[in-house]
Amino acid sequence: MVFKENWKDICSAKKNAQVAAIPSEWILDLPPESQNLDRVLDIPAQSAVLSDRELEMTNTTDVGLLLQKLRSAEWSSVDVTKAFYKRAIIAQQLTNCLTEIFVERALERAQQLDDILRTTGQPVGPLHGLPISLKDQFTMQGLETVMAKASSPAAGYVSWVGKYADSNCVIVEILYECGAVPFVRTNVPQTLMWGETYNHVFGRTTNPYNRKLTPGGSSGGEGALLAMKGSPLGVGTDIGGSLRIPSAFCGLYTLRPSYERLPYGGAVNALEGQESISSVLGPMANSMSGVKIFIKAIIDAKPWTRDPLVLRKPWSEGEYALEEHGGGRGMCFAIMWDNGVVRPHPPLWRAMEMTKKALEAAGHKVIDWEPHRHLEIYKNAETIFVADGGYDYRAQCAFSGEPLIETMVPPTDAHPSHLSEPFVKTLVGKEAHLSAYDLWQLHKEKRELRQSHHDHWQRTVSRTGTGRPVDAIISPAVAYTAVPHGLNTDSFYTTLCNALDYACSVFPVTFVDSALDRPQPPHKFHNHEDEAIFKLYSTDLFAGCPVGLQLIGRSQEEEAVIAMTEIVDNALKGTLG
Amino acid sequence: MVFKENWKDICSAKKNAQVAAIPSEWILDLPPESQNLDRVLDIPAQSAVLSDRELEMTNTTDVGLLLQKLRSAEWSSVDVTKAFYKRAIIAQQLTNCLTEIFVERALERAQQLDDILRTTGQPVGPLHGLPISLKDQFTMQGLETVMAKASSPAAGYVSWVGKYADSNCVIVEILYECGAVPFVRTNVPQTLMWGETYNHVFGRTTNPYNRKLTPGGSSGGEGALLAMKGSPLGVGTDIGGSLRIPSAFCGLYTLRPSYERLPYGGAVNALEGQESISSVLGPMANSMSGVKIFIKAIIDAKPWTRDPLVLRKPWSEGEYALEEHGGGRGMCFAIMWDNGVVRPHPPLWRAMEMTKKALEAAGHKVIDWEPHRHLEIYKNAETIFVADGGYDYRAQCAFSGEPLIETMVPPTDAHPSHLSEPFVKTLVGKEAHLSAYDLWQLHKEKRELRQSHHDHWQRTVSRTGTGRPVDAIISPAVAYTAVPHGLNTDSFYTTLCNALDYACSVFPVTFVDSALDRPQPPHKFHNHEDEAIFKLYSTDLFAGCPVGLQLIGRSQEEEAVIAMTEIVDNALKGTLG
Repeated sequence: MVFKENWKDICSAKKNAQVAAIPSEWILDLPPESQNLDRVLDIPAQSAVLSDRELEMTNTTDVGLLLQKLRSAEWSSVDVTKAFYKRAIIAQQLTNCLTEIFVERALERAQQLDDILRTTGQPVGPLHGLPISLKDQFTMQGLETVMAKASSPAAGYVSWVGKYADSNCVIVEILYECGAVPFVRTNVPQTLMWGETYNHVFGRTTNPYNRKLTPGGSSGGEGALLAMKGSPLGVGTDIGGSLRIPSAFCGLYTLRPSYERLPYGGAVNALEGQESISSVLGPMANSMSGVKIFIKAIIDAKPWTRDPLVLRKPWSEGEYALEEHGGGRGMCFAIMWDNGVVRPHPPLWRAMEMTKKALEAAGHKVIDWEPHRHLEIYKNAETIFVADGGYDYRAQCAFSGEPLIETMVPPTDAHPSHLSEPFVKTLVGKEAHLSAYDLWQLHKEKRELRQSHHDHWQRTVSRTGTGRPVDAIISPAVAYTAVPHGLNTDSFYTTLCNALDYACSVFPVTFVDSALDRPQPPHKFHNHEDEAIFKLYSTDLFAGCPVGLQLIGRSQEEEAVIAMTEIVDNALKGTLG
Repeated sequence: MVFKENWKDICSAKKNAQVAAIPSEWILDLPPESQNLDRVLDIPAQSAVLSDRELEMTNTTDVGLLLQKLRSAEWSSVDVTKAFYKRAIIAQQLTNCLTEIFVERALERAQQLDDILRTTGQPVGPLHGLPISLKDQFTMQGLETVMAKASSPAAGYVSWVGKYADSNCVIVEILYECGAVPFVRTNVPQTLMWGETYNHVFGRTTNPYNRKLTPGGSSGGEGALLAMKGSPLGVGTDIGGSLRIPSAFCGLYTLRPSYERLPYGGAVNALEGQESISSVLGPMANSMSGVKIFIKAIIDAKPWTRDPLVLRKPWSEGEYALEEHGGGRGMCFAIMWDNGVVRPHPPLWRAMEMTKKALEAAGHKVIDWEPHRHLEIYKNAETIFVADGGYDYRAQCAFSGEPLIETMVPPTDAHPSHLSEPFVKTLVGKEAHLSAYDLWQLHKEKRELRQSHHDHWQRTVSRTGTGRPVDAIISPAVAYTAVPHGLNTDSFYTTLCNALDYACSVFPVTFVDSALDRPQPPHKFHNHEDEAIFKLYSTDLFAGCPVGLQLIGRSQEEEAVIAMTEIVDNALKGTLG
């Protein structure tokens, strides 16, 4: 299996093929002064690439509205797909967010859908005509066209270049049946186990709010693309925060579903066979309507009839109506102001205060969440992730000879506050390849921690006044907004939900405001990383960055988490409006 | 933790305490000629211990009817509990099926329930007043009575004697809330990983149909007890067949639910932390009504609010009405006549033929199941079970100094056909303690096998004529009926469902008939174990033994599997009646 061609040549060839896949008329002719722009969000509107109509289409962030226009044939799928494709290609040129580009194939598909709608009068499915971007794990069957070759799995490893998929993964199959138009694939970090997005094949993805900052990861290509409105809906994955970190850093909505609620079958993955804490897939979008429509469409397609690992649990309108949460009236939320590991930066505190006020104004109660064994849960999860002592990473690299990436800091950068030893390394200790029995002991510990955290949550019934435990927890997704490349070390807030399998969402609240989000005096630091993160904060660096929060529900409560996030989102918009 | 008191003394003391817990008036005075009886099923009716009314109560195998009489106060819970307790104690004296005996505690509980019903007019819950027996894994909180001390977890290891539970496990909590009366605990094998029932603490459980034969295991105490009608409903567990083997050997109904459908939280277990193929709990009973009532009662209690590992999946009346299976009319079943590993004994073939005929008479279609990668699936599962190289077993034994039990053959027996090396040992090969990475590779293989078997099942759509794939598979649970102690080596038919997480049931069909079930000429043997099992068959040895079959559905299809088993059961009764 080992092939030792020069891995750098493989990367160049792949990158050249990618550039060649871009229609020349979509290549930006940027004025020289914009080459060094930090913020590039406005370039699509300023460039001549998109028509006014195409700008209107791509600015339609309400996925429900977009689908309505597609279903009614007011907008054709070809036109909408072309509009998003152009904008995606602009995003690519500015943030390097894409991997696979296959314009012809996507437009052919869109044309088919338009034809069907025209001739039958019926849309193909609930996602009729909608372009959808896919994280570079979701395999698509190669067709006999030039573009088909682009659809090889990559997922960040050089060795995966040149492997062509001979079938669609299950989620792609279902998306096709729902009438969607998969149209680009998006960038990821090597190993998929980073909260940023850089690999040897496609390079680094940057954040369009400020290209000096990371869009997060591992679904960071999706984050940058969606923030640029280069896609109406993207599909990412999450094993420790990989949907939620880029969503928080890029001002997006997402949902991390519970293990096996949505079909992962056939998608490529890192650490394959690691089942202690499973990666899950989920949507990312500029609206909650996108999140809900995606989840409902996939579940309504009965994914368990294709992928035997998927839970046989139909979409529940009752759970969406919050029948287990007082019908959504007079609920009680708890805010996790500080998880006791890393204290959130000032904009996060302001976002939580805004949310508290908005919820109270909407008739809900808000209490404080008391963190419970947070660090133990985090340590257990992180120890599981490296139970093979890094063997899987090294084996994947060995296939091509590429080196294992040890830092996300660009070689040209030097960050005084960079942690030479993130707290996670202190916690997990020396890398060791565990035995099966040792792994079983970690599972025992994990089960005990899940029960303990569950019981802790149940006991909040004494403080809510609703007769129920807290309906949901609201917390940061990350303790800060997007940070300079190489400085994202915090997955303490997100990994909690992966370890405990809590369904959870991320929603945008506000933007960093230099006037409002003043640096705070030092607190008693929880640990050395908390101190480093405290010192990282400056209003100049972060001004204008999106600030998102996380809403945490129980396992397999996807419907209720969507409904509660809608309530929070509407409450915030009501307060602001 | 290591204590090296003489482990034999610990066992004797425990056994003496057990004998002392039996009220003297319930001790059987057996005529000398019955001491050596093989079949002891009729002794409860012949002995003077139970009154006619108590015989009527304990012969009421329809759990729905029994509950109706309890709810209406026609029979009091005290009377019913006492009746079953007496019969359980008879069963204990004849088959050694019990571990913990706590008469006073159970009768106090029954009295409470009677009082509540009398004073409020309302039953406590859906299992009001019903005595329930529990496999010796289900911990019960110690009360301040002498009997409470009996409720320590044991599960087959000497080292667990003397460990008193400080709380009820989740299933016991829920049973109490449902109004049940947990009244005895039942015997298991050391390690829980045997299909028979023998340990150093409580000794060997025998089969009341023929005490020279095993009741199966690991829920073998339940099997013998229920066959004696010493309990109306029992709770066992299953990781490779432990509910289904004793149910098949003892003429009972059971359901093996999918992983995490029912709450295992707080129960003690062997190989704790082994999560690749999870043990599950389920009911065993003399009627399908018992199986359905138990499953529905537990799910209706929302077990996920107590045990965070339990699936948030309410009982579905739609799935029970077989809405995914044509409403239960004109279904298509497939019979697995031979799994290609061990050819079933003649009575199993006759049972499958009877079932085929009965289903066809009831308007269903029956086709042949083509086994698919059966041996690969089995080998993957068995390799996972010993991924720790037996470390867990040895560690448990080391606490007390008891030796690891290497065979279930009684020292006094000598079976010419005994396999010195069962086929599973040939398959799995030399015992080795795997690394975490190796275990992940087994998981990868397992996922591929699950997908492959699923796809194979889906493809049957071309042969069913219903527009659906086969609705359920009918197969043996074990290739033979109850065998002499030490000779049960076949878990090839059952482990398939644990590895693939298929929900499945066992139901009784007939009894071995010397005239009908003649030995067959040798076939081309699949392997050396298949040959040994072929040679084991003799009508004399097995005459009168119950013959049960397995009905296999998909993951999380508990409701549909119950409904389909009821259909098969009624079809069989219709044909016979």
